[in-house]
Amino acid sequence: MKRLFLFATTIFLLLSCNSEQTADLKTQNETTKSEVQKEIVPTLVIHGGAGTIRKENMSPELEKEYNHKLEEALNAGYKILDEGGNSSDAVIAAIQIMEASPLFNAGIGAVYTHDETIEHDASFMDGKTKNAGAVAGVSRIKSPIEAAFEVMNSSVHVMMSGKGAELFAKQQGLEMVDPSYFHNEKRHQQLLRIKESEKAELDHDGKSAQMEPYEHDYKYGTVGAVALDKNGNLAAGTSTGGMTNKRYGRIGDSPIIGAGTYADNQTCAVSSTGHGEYFIRNVVAYDIAARMKYKESSLENAANSTIEELGKIDGTGGVICLDAQGNIALTFNTAGMYRGWINQSGQPNVLMYKN
Amino acid sequence: MKRLFLFATTIFLLLSCNSEQTADLKTQNETTKSEVQKEIVPTLVIHGGAGTIRKENMSPELEKEYNHKLEEALNAGYKILDEGGNSSDAVIAAIQIMEASPLFNAGIGAVYTHDETIEHDASFMDGKTKNAGAVAGVSRIKSPIEAAFEVMNSSVHVMMSGKGAELFAKQQGLEMVDPSYFHNEKRHQQLLRIKESEKAELDHDGKSAQMEPYEHDYKYGTVGAVALDKNGNLAAGTSTGGMTNKRYGRIGDSPIIGAGTYADNQTCAVSSTGHGEYFIRNVVAYDIAARMKYKESSLENAANSTIEELGKIDGTGGVICLDAQGNIALTFNTAGMYRGWINQSGQPNVLMYKN
Repeated sequence: MKRLFLFATTIFLLLSCNSEQTADLKTQNETTKSEVQKEIVPTLVIHGGAGTIRKENMSPELEKEYNHKLEEALNAGYKILDEGGNSSDAVIAAIQIMEASPLFNAGIGAVYTHDETIEHDASFMDGKTKNAGAVAGVSRIKSPIEAAFEVMNSSVHVMMSGKGAELFAKQQGLEMVDPSYFHNEKRHQQLLRIKESEKAELDHDGKSAQMEPYEHDYKYGTVGAVALDKNGNLAAGTSTGGMTNKRYGRIGDSPIIGAGTYADNQTCAVSSTGHGEYFIRNVVAYDIAARMKYKESSLENAANSTIEELGKIDGTGGVICLDAQGNIALTFNTAGMYRGWINQSGQPNVLMYKN
Repeated sequence: MKRLFLFATTIFLLLSCNSEQTADLKTQNETTKSEVQKEIVPTLVIHGGAGTIRKENMSPELEKEYNHKLEEALNAGYKILDEGGNSSDAVIAAIQIMEASPLFNAGIGAVYTHDETIEHDASFMDGKTKNAGAVAGVSRIKSPIEAAFEVMNSSVHVMMSGKGAELFAKQQGLEMVDPSYFHNEKRHQQLLRIKESEKAELDHDGKSAQMEPYEHDYKYGTVGAVALDKNGNLAAGTSTGGMTNKRYGRIGDSPIIGAGTYADNQTCAVSSTGHGEYFIRNVVAYDIAARMKYKESSLENAANSTIEELGKIDGTGGVICLDAQGNIALTFNTAGMYRGWINQSGQPNVLMYKN
């Protein structure tokens, strides 16, 4: 019996050793894998907002316009990556194309506030350094995403707001414009319609002055991009005009690091679009990274779980995610999300509706 | 040999079964524990800022003042919990005592901005609903933490800023004051000294207009509270004047849900104090919750790991944390942190220095 016990113990010890060997092998495999990974395939993923985007509400002409603009943004960013440029520049280039288009709720396409002004929010994060920058409530900076990038690069702060952020941008030599530059008649009419319906609702229950009147496509439009460059560095950026008819200096998730934007080479880069309040409460962008970091979830599983949890508190919207291995996830719980990606083929892929 | 192998396999299987039994036992224990836990011991934890707080720099009189004020805040909040009140009200009561004291960088003790104004930031989160509210850059609201709470309770937004947030607070009937109400000559002199040294530094390298001049005790002072009530609900709140000499509408971590404040009954309640930029980049408050949620870390281990990781990017400060079982963690990597807690004994415990 003693001999049997000894033998059993030996077997058990051998099994233990084997599991350590497995660990060693795993480490070796990881080394090999990481050597292979040195030839990283640059990738760019973008979104132009999530919402009730349905084919039946879209004219063929408008669909073409969206397709064309999303492809242009993908091509502009990917050109930089393909030529060996860094992920930060690719993210900025792609977002600036969308900021300069009236199709998206950002830059010149930004929605109006309750006071009939435009207030942009934007943020940027560098996955290599985990450094970040953001601006909130700015009305005179031509490219809000560039201002966020500048806050990161040329200040000790992460987040600046309002007139102060504008002063900083001006001092840094960024292009400033008169607020009228962002005037967009379509958006203005949209605000007036919403205000009209809000008034009706106010008459009804007498207490909705602080309530958004109803779900609207552009209630939470946003643009964003995440990129991986040849050096394996991730970057993420988000830019928006916020919520139509917003008031009280409302700040949504887009300028909030952790909610609207997050990037860390160790996990992933994320840009969010959706009903910002829920994204803030669930710390959506960082939650995806945390699931990868602490739970060892894959990028896809992490993104799915985070959006599923968002849905549980009635939060709607989506995320674009990219990890340092070039895996991508484009996840949303709305009818659609303007989105696209481009990698080694050099061909942009663009989608709008579910599946 | 075959028999020996069979025996070894049996032993191995038995060992496996045993580990499952252990798991079962663990589950049973947890059930028992959670039944016991129905009699939750209400707890309140507060902080009054972290920094280079050392005994050698503190007069006995000032030490007494801090002790007295921290005890007053603990007693005020705990009274509510002890009488069966909710954690939200306890957090607000404790923070309001500190906002009304010139000893802390919040309310009437708030530091000055570069433009010699006062700009308060505050945020609040309810652990039961994961609802949240925040205000940034406000100068006319008597109690910024109350305004954050009001944003949560009476609006569809999470974060409001500047004049807009003040308008909202006024409409909600909150007490408004003239900005001169917050004037504090000690803080004003502090700003002037910092500006003077900044000028000297600027002369030296010619590029520090956006740089903070040097580490300073009140550079990142804050007040905060986390509470657990008899119903097992957690709440967290943070209030601050931000960084002395801040400019460009700088927003720190205090009004950022996930960075400065977080609460979820499933994990913990956290309030941060420190060099805000680093807390934003590391999403400090939510990172602690995420370690508990996804890595099954204890509250203490989670808080330690998060602050350790903060130190790796040269971030300094601390956190107060409380979970739904009444475990507390007060963790910081600065010389000291004004802090205290109170639970079933009804006796406030106050500390300032390390250990």
